[in-house]
Amino acid sequence: MTDDPRRRAINLREKFELLTDRWQPRVVAELNDYQFKIVRVEGDFVWHDHPDTDEAFLVLEGELRIDLPDGAARVREGELFVVPRGVQHKPYAEREVRLMLIEPRGVPNTRSEGGPRTADQDLWI
Amino acid sequence: MTDDPRRRAINLREKFELLTDRWQPRVVAELNDYQFKIVRVEGDFVWHDHPDTDEAFLVLEGELRIDLPDGAARVREGELFVVPRGVQHKPYAEREVRLMLIEPRGVPNTRSEGGPRTADQDLWI
Repeated sequence: MTDDPRRRAINLREKFELLTDRWQPRVVAELNDYQFKIVRVEGDFVWHDHPDTDEAFLVLEGELRIDLPDGAARVREGELFVVPRGVQHKPYAEREVRLMLIEPRGVPNTRSEGGPRTADQDLWI
Repeated sequence: MTDDPRRRAINLREKFELLTDRWQPRVVAELNDYQFKIVRVEGDFVWHDHPDTDEAFLVLEGELRIDLPDGAARVREGELFVVPRGVQHKPYAEREVRLMLIEPRGVPNTRSEGGPRTADQDLWI
């Protein structure tokens, strides 16, 4: 009975074991038109914003710094941070961070900034 | 600078220390019109569904069983489970479970079932 995938919980630690690249969010679940994505990050991202949506970061391992226009938020393991829509931000991880993003389906990770950090959309793991 | 509440991350463990009652979800953050709520549960809930929305459960401590029409999902620490809209479900925790719910603002916890498990809406912690 518990083999039915519809009744199987998503183990985030197991999902991270499948995730070998960085800065490439992978969808693990959907909630209406929102997505839960996991991503491994290390180093510097690019400044960007999302004009139409807030973006939630839940850190599962490590410590993420999110640079904001007038300071920085530090988001540690077990902490949640929501970047409001339209607010410029730049994630930075001195050492590898494993985190979950929650946002509407179809939000590009760099908005329109492009560049090497721009991830493919809607990849599942 | 880091005292600015707009740049302060939400520490879920600290929030749980403030939460003394059970089955009473408290909002810790919003993402557009969605809410992150934490709740302590132990024992049996009531069968109910949410006809208009999926509901996400992220277990932070303990093991939650979610009874479903044709079986049960077991959701352990670090696991995520999404109950699809319209699907009857009944959470159950043999021992205390600490979990986060993610769902649209304004979803009643028992739908229209009422009874002693019905929580107040939109309480923050």
